[in-house]
Amino acid sequence: MKKPDLTYRWPDGHSCAFCFTIDVDAESPHIWRSRATGIKALQQIEQRRYGLREGIWNLLDLLQNYGVKATCFVPGYEAETRPWLLESLAERGHEVALHGYYHEVSADITTERFRETLEKAMDLFKKQIGVIPRGYRSPSWEMTPESFGVLRDLGLEYDSSLSGYDHPYEIMDLVEMPIQWPLDDAMYFRFFGGGVDRWLSHGTGETAGEWLEYCDAICGHGGVSISTMHPYLSGRTTRLATPEVLLRHFSEKGVWMPTLSELNDYHRSSSNKGKFVASAEIPVLPETY
Amino acid sequence: MKKPDLTYRWPDGHSCAFCFTIDVDAESPHIWRSRATGIKALQQIEQRRYGLREGIWNLLDLLQNYGVKATCFVPGYEAETRPWLLESLAERGHEVALHGYYHEVSADITTERFRETLEKAMDLFKKQIGVIPRGYRSPSWEMTPESFGVLRDLGLEYDSSLSGYDHPYEIMDLVEMPIQWPLDDAMYFRFFGGGVDRWLSHGTGETAGEWLEYCDAICGHGGVSISTMHPYLSGRTTRLATPEVLLRHFSEKGVWMPTLSELNDYHRSSSNKGKFVASAEIPVLPETY
Amino acid sequence: MKKPDLTYRWPDGHSCAFCFTIDVDAESPHIWRSRATGIKALQQIEQRRYGLREGIWNLLDLLQNYGVKATCFVPGYEAETRPWLLESLAERGHEVALHGYYHEVSADITTERFRETLEKAMDLFKKQIGVIPRGYRSPSWEMTPESFGVLRDLGLEYDSSLSGYDHPYEIMDLVEMPIQWPLDDAMYFRFFGGGVDRWLSHGTGETAGEWLEYCDAICGHGGVSISTMHPYLSGRTTRLATPEVLLRHFSEKGVWMPTLSELNDYHRSSSNKGKFVASAEIPVLPETY
Amino acid sequence: MKKPDLTYRWPDGHSCAFCFTIDVDAESPHIWRSRATGIKALQQIEQRRYGLREGIWNLLDLLQNYGVKATCFVPGYEAETRPWLLESLAERGHEVALHGYYHEVSADITTERFRETLEKAMDLFKKQIGVIPRGYRSPSWEMTPESFGVLRDLGLEYDSSLSGYDHPYEIMDLVEMPIQWPLDDAMYFRFFGGGVDRWLSHGTGETAGEWLEYCDAICGHGGVSISTMHPYLSGRTTRLATPEVLLRHFSEKGVWMPTLSELNDYHRSSSNKGKFVASAEIPVLPETY
Repeated sequence: MKKPDLTYRWPDGHSCAFCFTIDVDAESPHIWRSRATGIKALQQIEQRRYGLREGIWNLLDLLQNYGVKATCFVPGYEAETRPWLLESLAERGHEVALHGYYHEVSADITTERFRETLEKAMDLFKKQIGVIPRGYRSPSWEMTPESFGVLRDLGLEYDSSLSGYDHPYEIMDLVEMPIQWPLDDAMYFRFFGGGVDRWLSHGTGETAGEWLEYCDAICGHGGVSISTMHPYLSGRTTRLATPEVLLRHFSEKGVWMPTLSELNDYHRSSSNKGKFVASAEIPVLPETY
Repeated sequence: MKKPDLTYRWPDGHSCAFCFTIDVDAESPHIWRSRATGIKALQQIEQRRYGLREGIWNLLDLLQNYGVKATCFVPGYEAETRPWLLESLAERGHEVALHGYYHEVSADITTERFRETLEKAMDLFKKQIGVIPRGYRSPSWEMTPESFGVLRDLGLEYDSSLSGYDHPYEIMDLVEMPIQWPLDDAMYFRFFGGGVDRWLSHGTGETAGEWLEYCDAICGHGGVSISTMHPYLSGRTTRLATPEVLLRHFSEKGVWMPTLSELNDYHRSSSNKGKFVASAEIPVLPETY
Repeated sequence: MKKPDLTYRWPDGHSCAFCFTIDVDAESPHIWRSRATGIKALQQIEQRRYGLREGIWNLLDLLQNYGVKATCFVPGYEAETRPWLLESLAERGHEVALHGYYHEVSADITTERFRETLEKAMDLFKKQIGVIPRGYRSPSWEMTPESFGVLRDLGLEYDSSLSGYDHPYEIMDLVEMPIQWPLDDAMYFRFFGGGVDRWLSHGTGETAGEWLEYCDAICGHGGVSISTMHPYLSGRTTRLATPEVLLRHFSEKGVWMPTLSELNDYHRSSSNKGKFVASAEIPVLPETY
Repeated sequence: MKKPDLTYRWPDGHSCAFCFTIDVDAESPHIWRSRATGIKALQQIEQRRYGLREGIWNLLDLLQNYGVKATCFVPGYEAETRPWLLESLAERGHEVALHGYYHEVSADITTERFRETLEKAMDLFKKQIGVIPRGYRSPSWEMTPESFGVLRDLGLEYDSSLSGYDHPYEIMDLVEMPIQWPLDDAMYFRFFGGGVDRWLSHGTGETAGEWLEYCDAICGHGGVSISTMHPYLSGRTTRLATPEVLLRHFSEKGVWMPTLSELNDYHRSSSNKGKFVASAEIPVLPETY
């Protein structure tokens, strides 16, 4: 077979894109993972709270310095407990999008419950800032076929949780904005102690080097690099130099840096539409096996 | 005792070899490992599907640029669900060989079942492209003495799953083509999330450096470097530079780059035949201990 | 919302601080963690005993060379079994502070028991050297709200176990002196064998490089770097160059290097007082959820 | 308290030492760890067998090139199944010493059984090459107080399993030759697959750099660096450059490189005797606690 045409078409003058996204998590993932036992100690809590005390402001300053608009995935709990949060993001021109209510992993709850968490979060977004979010990112990047069905039913336009191409593609009528584990700051910088960590956090310079290498490879092959930052990790004063390396690099190269909504709009109106469609079907071992 | 003669003889003009092999896995390892529970989420599935959407084409382009023929171990499931796959590999001159049907770890199934999976895969290879495969690679590189018996019964000529020498050797009448964990891209690049990973994926430049160092050491001692690539990992646009480093390096050095079948033919006709024979016997603790 | 004022004010002529702290643990953490099973083998014991045979003297020499006063958190057991220990630290001008009696993790014992361990340790400090400690560091950096209550009741003035800001702040009337996991030598250098380790210890030069990078980032943003050393790890002759890198660097830069008591005094008398107050409340999932 | 005198005295003209030791393990550790389940697959077996097919010869060549005598700890099983092994080591001037019979971890067997394994191994050493071994190294570096009693009863003179100083010291009348986990090649190079590994093997150049840094630090402080090599790891052609870096470095520096028996003789006749004595007592939590 001849190699299929796998080229993604970018707008005139661009050959790739870079998107800066923020998962605005504070306590909600910890509350959710501890739902059976409760939380006893403050170590992880205080680390996470740093993110919405200081970290988010550090990231917002950084984005302003480079004139870049981010896409911010905000769990309902964080928006509810910090009534200034959604507004502060929106008034600076950043996109806000859904990320569960208590950062629920969709594969671990029923479809009904999944729908309720999103409806509750959407109501909150609408009430607080009058915005109907257009996109969703699954906590821990676990999506099920049923979750896609709910997103579609709720009128969402894109998801950003999977890695099936290195550019936008489509699953069940949603545009999928591909993330990459090696571009998730949590993999490099998260360290809570108490025996839950499997490896030590990485140095900031080393991490910046790996990210540049990885993003440049995507860009060189005509894809989109979607990096994921957390206010309590990359927003920490000790790590702020690392996201800055990416912003400086792509600013200097003049790379397109849309929000995910802008990229969604582009995709749907471009010749790429319908060209990269993935099935959400899950394979099974034959029963007779 | 005097040091035994451990020198492997290479064809005239060569002092070592390098083999580029591809484990053409997509969903089958995940289906197999999840056989008790089923699969719920799409993260790992989408990563794996990337390999046969894009990754394999990226690797094939790369091989063509360097004029190198690879040995491709293809699980039956991947060949069955992508009827273009075996044909596309074969018509480009690459060798196709066996890798289970659902990527079954042979130590975890009965010998009877192991035989059936290989017969089923051989039938498929024959039916799809009229080729009788000559070699086998064990998923997860776990071979049992019984598995070697089955390979021999089915007329296979070589296996590529063990590390008992740094050059071809023999076990139970099969030629063993030695792999090396540090030359398996999965160890450096695989990262699925969901709590299954024990370490973070490595950077591409760092990995290329370690591979070169390792392969050069083998070459300097007169052995064969057999590197293992996966379309969903090294075939990803973000990592394509890493396998390329090896191809460029050994091309420039003029190192022999045979397929494993070619290496098998050479070994059997050379003075090395019968010189490096390993027992498949498994040691046991005495009962009286 | 406008960005809040997050600037921490330093004394005239200073823009940040660096504190050298020592967790003077030997056997007590191992005794405590093995309380259900007992200890059978000597490997970890001998490693730990090295710290109070040689390691502490190596660190004290180093501190003297640079004219720096450290804050030493000493478990009661270590002070009780080495009657020369507290005295040797105090007479060299270092601060001694509390670190449990058997290095108990406060989240794993009752509040009553927690109070008893601290009272017993305070009695010992007073009896051995007539000093009433002013600060506490929680073993494994796990604090509970109840623990803070006990610290307050016992008249302690500061804690050094959490990471909620990169400069001193306040929780329940105590000044919190923020630690950082990436500045804990145990994360880089601890390796006991016997299957308990999750990653290999790091090289000394690589570690020194990461620490400098991290501390400089804190300093550049006007915070305090509080590094944590253990006599059996950084005090080992093989690693002594690593803490020295920090002492040399901050000495040359003229950075303020107070003990934590001195920093506590400064904080309480400065305009920072009352400006950075954290809640010790632990969030819970609503019951109806 | 004044700093105690911690200086170890070396022979005239020397200020430190370096010892090259080899743990001559092949299958025995795997047989022992699998004693409850048996072994099913050949991956780990073949890796281990490489060591006594090729690896040991590679190491012996290397040692000969640098004129260095090693201390070789040989489990009884490996000596029994390779009757040429002890003889080949001894006739090249290397010291052979005890390492269990099936590489038994002493903390996991009774004292009686521990005594039997050593007596059986000693009988074998005597019968095969007429040598009564003088030293012992505990598999996995786990020693118990009871094990020290057995060593003493059997007339052994030194042990090499613990890390309580960075130079020879004494426990229960034996001289302890201190090992260091960061100088054990298994921590850097061992990788078996099958889900048993917690981190990926390290590159050879990176490892050599860390070893040099570590050994130089010991040497600079007047201690002894005792490095541990395995024929199936550092003896592999792919890693041979790493132990060579140490041999070349210390040869060029003219550092003393005794066998452990020679170091034992020196220690017992030197002014260091009786100066560094460690207790083998294991601490316990008081019952009333």
